[in-house]
Amino acid sequence: MPMTITEKILAAHAGKEQVTPGELINARVDFVLANDITAPVAIKEFEKIGVKDVFDRERITLVPDHFTPNKDIKSAEQAMLLKQFSRKHDLVNYFEVGRMGIEHCLLPEQGLVGPGDLIIGADSHTCTYGALGAFSTGVGSTDLAAAMALGETWLKVPETIKFEFAGKLKPWVGGKDLILHAIGDIGVDGALYQAMEFTGEAIENLSMDGRLTMCNMAIEAGGKNGIIAPDEITRAYVEGRCKRPYQFYQSDPDAKYEKIYHYDASLIEPQVAFPHLPENSRPVSEAGNVEIDQVVIGSCTNGRMEDLREAARLLKGKKVHKNVRLIIFPGTQEIYLQAMREGLFEIFVEAGGAVSTPTCGPCLGGHMGILAKGERAIATTNRNFVGRMGDPESEVYLANPAVAATSAILGRIAGPGEVE
Amino acid sequence: MPMTITEKILAAHAGKEQVTPGELINARVDFVLANDITAPVAIKEFEKIGVKDVFDRERITLVPDHFTPNKDIKSAEQAMLLKQFSRKHDLVNYFEVGRMGIEHCLLPEQGLVGPGDLIIGADSHTCTYGALGAFSTGVGSTDLAAAMALGETWLKVPETIKFEFAGKLKPWVGGKDLILHAIGDIGVDGALYQAMEFTGEAIENLSMDGRLTMCNMAIEAGGKNGIIAPDEITRAYVEGRCKRPYQFYQSDPDAKYEKIYHYDASLIEPQVAFPHLPENSRPVSEAGNVEIDQVVIGSCTNGRMEDLREAARLLKGKKVHKNVRLIIFPGTQEIYLQAMREGLFEIFVEAGGAVSTPTCGPCLGGHMGILAKGERAIATTNRNFVGRMGDPESEVYLANPAVAATSAILGRIAGPGEVE
Repeated sequence: MPMTITEKILAAHAGKEQVTPGELINARVDFVLANDITAPVAIKEFEKIGVKDVFDRERITLVPDHFTPNKDIKSAEQAMLLKQFSRKHDLVNYFEVGRMGIEHCLLPEQGLVGPGDLIIGADSHTCTYGALGAFSTGVGSTDLAAAMALGETWLKVPETIKFEFAGKLKPWVGGKDLILHAIGDIGVDGALYQAMEFTGEAIENLSMDGRLTMCNMAIEAGGKNGIIAPDEITRAYVEGRCKRPYQFYQSDPDAKYEKIYHYDASLIEPQVAFPHLPENSRPVSEAGNVEIDQVVIGSCTNGRMEDLREAARLLKGKKVHKNVRLIIFPGTQEIYLQAMREGLFEIFVEAGGAVSTPTCGPCLGGHMGILAKGERAIATTNRNFVGRMGDPESEVYLANPAVAATSAILGRIAGPGEVE
Repeated sequence: MPMTITEKILAAHAGKEQVTPGELINARVDFVLANDITAPVAIKEFEKIGVKDVFDRERITLVPDHFTPNKDIKSAEQAMLLKQFSRKHDLVNYFEVGRMGIEHCLLPEQGLVGPGDLIIGADSHTCTYGALGAFSTGVGSTDLAAAMALGETWLKVPETIKFEFAGKLKPWVGGKDLILHAIGDIGVDGALYQAMEFTGEAIENLSMDGRLTMCNMAIEAGGKNGIIAPDEITRAYVEGRCKRPYQFYQSDPDAKYEKIYHYDASLIEPQVAFPHLPENSRPVSEAGNVEIDQVVIGSCTNGRMEDLREAARLLKGKKVHKNVRLIIFPGTQEIYLQAMREGLFEIFVEAGGAVSTPTCGPCLGGHMGILAKGERAIATTNRNFVGRMGDPESEVYLANPAVAATSAILGRIAGPGEVE
């Protein structure tokens, strides 16, 4: 029977010829991760299981990225637990502050996850790695603990929805706009427990950074995973980088999809998702006059080189609006170094922006840019729920880095066409 | 009657020919400042006074540096108060995140304070500006509120203690070591409510950055102010920078000192102040084997160009020890830009350090590098009180940037001689 790429990866990891949507499987995991919020719980559960060792010390990483550099004593204690566990089990990959990054930027960059993998992580945006042609999904800390011990997890095989993006993208339109547009169309529960497979000419031409952004936000439509078939762009990214062998899977031409959405990507404008849901997206040209107090560029969604380059192109020689705080969060220390070497940080700081060390920071209301009551931010992050970035009466608008940079210059939400 | 430089500045600002120690005076202030911790209280008190305007909208600044970029909702609200007050009173100098710095690095750099000034600030390290030959001291938020309204403050004229540092400094010895040595000698209450006047060949040859470090820590011996007579080094620093006219004062040769301390500066080694007081200083060669978890380089004490250059010289081509987090806090956005352009950040990041946007951060246990129970940090900051940087059972060791950088490489407290 024909299968989708998601089904093929799950079947391979369950040791089966075939899996079908709705089937419960026990599957081997290739890599598991947790962060400073979720790992402490997972560690506690792991210790209850009573096994001595983790299943594979090369295939687990605990990344201290959410409240680091340590925000307060509580976050310091959490980061300490990660370090102690990593030392005790001699985990090969431990990333200390100064050598780390935001988990979902860090793992692909470091070649720890690759095409054909089954990856679970105690973080909802673990779906990011689908961009490499992997099955990757977020799980709870207890499921993660079991996987840390056994190297296995249980899963219900999801149905797959296909999203076909035909045509070529307009300037300043990228993965963020495609996914916001799709979520705007299907709603935040439009793909509940389903695989979101992104295809079509626009996807085939999309950079790896853009693909990572798209798959990152699959969870914002309720998706179990987001996935893009690996191709030459994937190969170029993973070759010489992946630390383990990888395998390219493709959906069969006659694979069964629960639903297929067709979009003419050439018509899609840069999007802005209005408060308080990612589904409230609309073209930036229809944003109206929304004044802003803060701009956040970065995060696991849009903190990669392409994102920073795009923002820098617009900010070069310009100044941040006097009423605006612009804060840049590069995804990893490698991205930080590269962006600095390319002169991007010089552009940001000369414009009046602040560049942070990699951290999840304000994206989840953590630290480093929290909003007061009544404040408004436009952010390249992934969620604009009530109070997501601070006070319950603050507002977050989601957009791509070009829209965010333009808004920083103008002090109100605006598309790049206004400053180019 | 002969006067010290401190007495002369106070007399001039009290409109008197002469002042004597112990005398209560009402003095005109040239500049007042507060930060995101102290300004909210000062603003509240200011509003109780009932005057409509501040005394001079060019001579007040409220710097959001302690818990910014906003650590949490509370700090966001505090920063918001500063912004609103600055807008309401049309204050000329308002520094938003991305355009700001740590107050005591920022004000001299921006030419807002200069030789001969009388400056008060609602922050204990306001004594920093004595390095320019100004009288500068920390006050409470209510005194600050009165000064914001009236442009005046009351003061008891302090006695002056002279600290004479004869001779030339050894390599890697700077202002931080001189002041730690002096505090080690006289104790944390050794100059209670007294002016600390730093003189001698070592001071005459000390850079402005080194002088700012020394005066910054006068309060750590209980001093009312630290002060260094302005000279050609001062002139070179303030010329073309100071936004207001300035005046050079000198102590009369026969001025009366409460006490005079003589040190042979050529014998002073790099110092380390052990927990939990700055007076617990000893030569780094006598530190013994103290393993560390975190290194902090920066702050209002040692976050200037000279400090970063010194750290970079040692870290170049080296790696931060695997057990250590190294976090660098440049003093201002200008310092950030300059250090980046000089390639210092490349050195820090390649070594495995994290570079933060300017903030007071962990120095006061604020955020961005808080210690867990049992953790140990060596820091170029100014205080190592119990729990200063996090958990009450954590420890802070104070040192200069060269010792801090060396310790980052070796994972234990060590002097630069060990890695040079």
